[in-house]
Amino acid sequence: MYRTHNNGELRASHVGQEVTLAGWVQKSRDKGFIVWVDLRDRYGMTQLVFDEERTPAAMMAEASKLGREFVIQVTGEVIERESKNPKMPTGDIEILVKKVTILNESLTPPFTIEDDTDGGEDLRMKYRYLDIRRNPVRENLIFRHKVSMAVRNYLSNQGFVDVETPYLIKSTPEGARDFVVPSRMNEGQFYALPQSPQTFKQLLMVGGLDKYFQIVKCFRDEDLRADRQPEFTQIDCEMAFIEQEDILNMFEGLTRHLLKEIKGIEIGDFPRMQYDDAMRLYGNDKPDIRFDMKFAELNDVTQHKDFGVFNSAELVVGIAVPGGNKYTRKEIDKIINWVKRPQVGALGMIYSRCNDDGTFKSSVDKFYDQEDLAKWAEVTGAEKGDLVCVLSGETNKVRAQMSALRMHLAEELGLRDPKVFAPLWVVDFPLLELDEETGHYHAMHHPFTSPKPGQLEMLDAKPGEVKANAYDLVLNGNEIGGGSIRIHDKETQAIMLKHLGFSEEEARAQFGFLMDAFEYGAPPHGGLAFGLDRLVAILGGQETIRDFIAFPKNNSGRDVMIDAPAPLDQEQLSELNLKLDIQAT
Amino acid sequence: MYRTHNNGELRASHVGQEVTLAGWVQKSRDKGFIVWVDLRDRYGMTQLVFDEERTPAAMMAEASKLGREFVIQVTGEVIERESKNPKMPTGDIEILVKKVTILNESLTPPFTIEDDTDGGEDLRMKYRYLDIRRNPVRENLIFRHKVSMAVRNYLSNQGFVDVETPYLIKSTPEGARDFVVPSRMNEGQFYALPQSPQTFKQLLMVGGLDKYFQIVKCFRDEDLRADRQPEFTQIDCEMAFIEQEDILNMFEGLTRHLLKEIKGIEIGDFPRMQYDDAMRLYGNDKPDIRFDMKFAELNDVTQHKDFGVFNSAELVVGIAVPGGNKYTRKEIDKIINWVKRPQVGALGMIYSRCNDDGTFKSSVDKFYDQEDLAKWAEVTGAEKGDLVCVLSGETNKVRAQMSALRMHLAEELGLRDPKVFAPLWVVDFPLLELDEETGHYHAMHHPFTSPKPGQLEMLDAKPGEVKANAYDLVLNGNEIGGGSIRIHDKETQAIMLKHLGFSEEEARAQFGFLMDAFEYGAPPHGGLAFGLDRLVAILGGQETIRDFIAFPKNNSGRDVMIDAPAPLDQEQLSELNLKLDIQAT
Repeated sequence: MYRTHNNGELRASHVGQEVTLAGWVQKSRDKGFIVWVDLRDRYGMTQLVFDEERTPAAMMAEASKLGREFVIQVTGEVIERESKNPKMPTGDIEILVKKVTILNESLTPPFTIEDDTDGGEDLRMKYRYLDIRRNPVRENLIFRHKVSMAVRNYLSNQGFVDVETPYLIKSTPEGARDFVVPSRMNEGQFYALPQSPQTFKQLLMVGGLDKYFQIVKCFRDEDLRADRQPEFTQIDCEMAFIEQEDILNMFEGLTRHLLKEIKGIEIGDFPRMQYDDAMRLYGNDKPDIRFDMKFAELNDVTQHKDFGVFNSAELVVGIAVPGGNKYTRKEIDKIINWVKRPQVGALGMIYSRCNDDGTFKSSVDKFYDQEDLAKWAEVTGAEKGDLVCVLSGETNKVRAQMSALRMHLAEELGLRDPKVFAPLWVVDFPLLELDEETGHYHAMHHPFTSPKPGQLEMLDAKPGEVKANAYDLVLNGNEIGGGSIRIHDKETQAIMLKHLGFSEEEARAQFGFLMDAFEYGAPPHGGLAFGLDRLVAILGGQETIRDFIAFPKNNSGRDVMIDAPAPLDQEQLSELNLKLDIQAT
Repeated sequence: MYRTHNNGELRASHVGQEVTLAGWVQKSRDKGFIVWVDLRDRYGMTQLVFDEERTPAAMMAEASKLGREFVIQVTGEVIERESKNPKMPTGDIEILVKKVTILNESLTPPFTIEDDTDGGEDLRMKYRYLDIRRNPVRENLIFRHKVSMAVRNYLSNQGFVDVETPYLIKSTPEGARDFVVPSRMNEGQFYALPQSPQTFKQLLMVGGLDKYFQIVKCFRDEDLRADRQPEFTQIDCEMAFIEQEDILNMFEGLTRHLLKEIKGIEIGDFPRMQYDDAMRLYGNDKPDIRFDMKFAELNDVTQHKDFGVFNSAELVVGIAVPGGNKYTRKEIDKIINWVKRPQVGALGMIYSRCNDDGTFKSSVDKFYDQEDLAKWAEVTGAEKGDLVCVLSGETNKVRAQMSALRMHLAEELGLRDPKVFAPLWVVDFPLLELDEETGHYHAMHHPFTSPKPGQLEMLDAKPGEVKANAYDLVLNGNEIGGGSIRIHDKETQAIMLKHLGFSEEEARAQFGFLMDAFEYGAPPHGGLAFGLDRLVAILGGQETIRDFIAFPKNNSGRDVMIDAPAPLDQEQLSELNLKLDIQAT
């Protein structure tokens, strides 16, 4: 037993007790005649005291040598502090040390172990084990644990069974790239790591398990964008004998439970929005509805004059920025420059100030009179003091641009409050999505998603218009979950795969086992998967998932702490019947 | 909503209600004028009835066409059965069907979906999704879920934090073979899948997390023995600021909790046994102590006569088989043949019958008199009616042989009762183990295991005698968990790695990050990992882990259902900068 108490639990009521504590030296203040040491562990901080009068000289000398992050064990008496610290839970007491043992020394850490550290991202990642000693990082990991446990207990109480599906599965070239694992025992063959347990959870439904969940690692070998990880965690769920409504209700219940249990926030019924409306009103399939600034389509009230930019545009769209008339000309120019950045890609922005006296002042007064501008204000819902911002162009592009602008302005205006939670179901996603590069349609969700009843017939004539029984759960402008009702009959699945460009042989080779399973009484089923990393980050009031992962990888997919990936021994390669095939450059 | 109730919940109290049910047709009995259908789902079975008098003719025709494993939905009235079935929870009622919808048809399944199926192992694995429909398989998976949840909640309540460690890590040639994952983004480099999160959990302790657990998949590319899986699940745990005693108490508590919560069995303090005693008394480091038959060393009472076999043996060891004198000569010959099988490898077996009249009759009466045989009985603890079995030879070999014989006889005598649970701690394992092939010592547990205090100095002179702070938890003759107190200072770790044959450069390349971490105030720490697959199987009263894994692999590491591993596309290989290097044979 290294300790009788932890460093967070001693109070005035313990005064007079002899205790043994262990932990890290946070800092020490050496006044010569008195030495104070702050001792830290996961649970808190306790002040140790050594003083000339009461501490033997040898121990005083030892105390003055205790460096930052030394691991020590002390035995001593809990005494009342002369000057109490009301900010510390243990601030009423300190420990008059009678015995001190250095359990391990420490070099000076490469960055300070403080809430606000001086360590940069790279250094913190290389010494992640020191970074984890910092309160915010440790609390994030403990927070994640709490969310996981709450999810598991909720789903388990609802009758879901946690089933572990395999990690060594089979590669499917369709979709994102798989990570693969060469098999030594099966020469020339490879396993793949799962991008999700999709087919296995469907097979569990065919197997009659009725309600399945799993918190499971998934793997995608993508070119990493910022804040993407090659391995990530899903809360993966599936139910049988259900309709879309049952799924939405079940997982709305889970999300409401998490908000209540973890954040203490009660939220009523989640609003639902059709995918088409989300695109029309927010330019985005994951709208942040914590604030307004809905899109207003202005074609009717802009294309009757001689302004060629608008007249030639497929879509003219505006938003009313609340209080935006306070922006100076310079500030507006900054916004215009922002939308013209290549990442956003607009050619320019038209605006109209809504003055307090009811008049308007626009950047296109040459073309539009007060009556026109009043219409713009009316359609966008702008009030006195607002600013109407207008973009125009090809529909998809201009929606994406306006969506970016809307988020940017909201951020600047402080409308994205991390303490406010606004969940939203987006439903009726398209079944297929056009790949503009190849001109082919591919599955928007995945090839197992069921089209809306009666729409299968449209697949040939209007593939882009077929809607799916697919839905996303959006929280504060982030997709935190998504799913669909699955196809459960062999014929529909075969039609879908054919439309996705699979030959019969390819379909058989890839998904033969699933098609076979559908021959033996597959029940109607559907499900949903949450991205746990993002869910936890958003519940934690942040948007960077890396801060909620114990050992994340960097944007090149490297773990800089353990220095992986790394070259293999030649012997290991030979055993796997592999040769490197690297072009000299 | 596909159903108002499930198939396990309707009772007499529901009579008169209209209900909608869905599920699979278990079987139907068609008498012409009346058709009964058993409808099955995860929750149970409900009897449906269609009869000439009350059912429209068209529906009667439909009912008679419902085949096994068809998925149907029915609406009807709950009525009281004429002949109740007390064996079924729903046996008081049946459903008079008013509407039936076939949700999916089914081919005749390749084996019967019954508790005792006619399907062989291979067929069941190929159609695992049908196998899972069988009650015993489904109940095993649900049982596993219950064990997992109980583990998580217990540890969470004890302050342990579930932390997800990475799956894409770095290969360490030491130990078992790693599965590796080529990195596309880091040309010529590979990740490895973890054999366990060992180093990461130690780093979490260095990071001050204090108590960690995770239920986590681990991977080992071994030549598979029966009942080994290339991917398996561990309950992985680590604690800081603890001594061995704290760990044993904590995980004894967990195991006791599981036995109570899952099996309803209360067990007191777990006995503890030194490794050396386990080897001496049971020839085995995971003794099954549900029954006795301890080894007795007989050198002193056998090597004083002219029997060369014993005189030349390093060890003569006997066990008293309770009631074994009832064996016929033929049965004893069978036992002798059993120990002579190559898998056991004994050259023969000597025995002595303990007759009811107090006399003895041995297979070596030519060499030993009644007084000698009385000594054998005394030392082995044999009583009248028992059989003393004696093996001799080189100590390690003869212990292994006797251990196998002891288990074999216990099995035959019905002493391995799956309803009895006998946990045992085996402690004080050797630090190192001699590899007889290479003549080198390697770490018995792993290179991070701490030697017993004060024994580090013996590493040079008597490496085989150094004991470690390492322990196994044994349940009914199976190792269900094992762990150790870890080294937490850089010097000791360096000495260990040197003794294990790592050069300084190799140690640096492999474990540099851990050695670095030990420079910055690593606390004393230790832990344990349970094998979840085996723990669940044993708690479930079985010893085959495959029955408790949803989608297991066969002995060649193949998933025969999805047919993995499989060849890769040439394009995928090229992207990974790999070539197959297969010798034509």
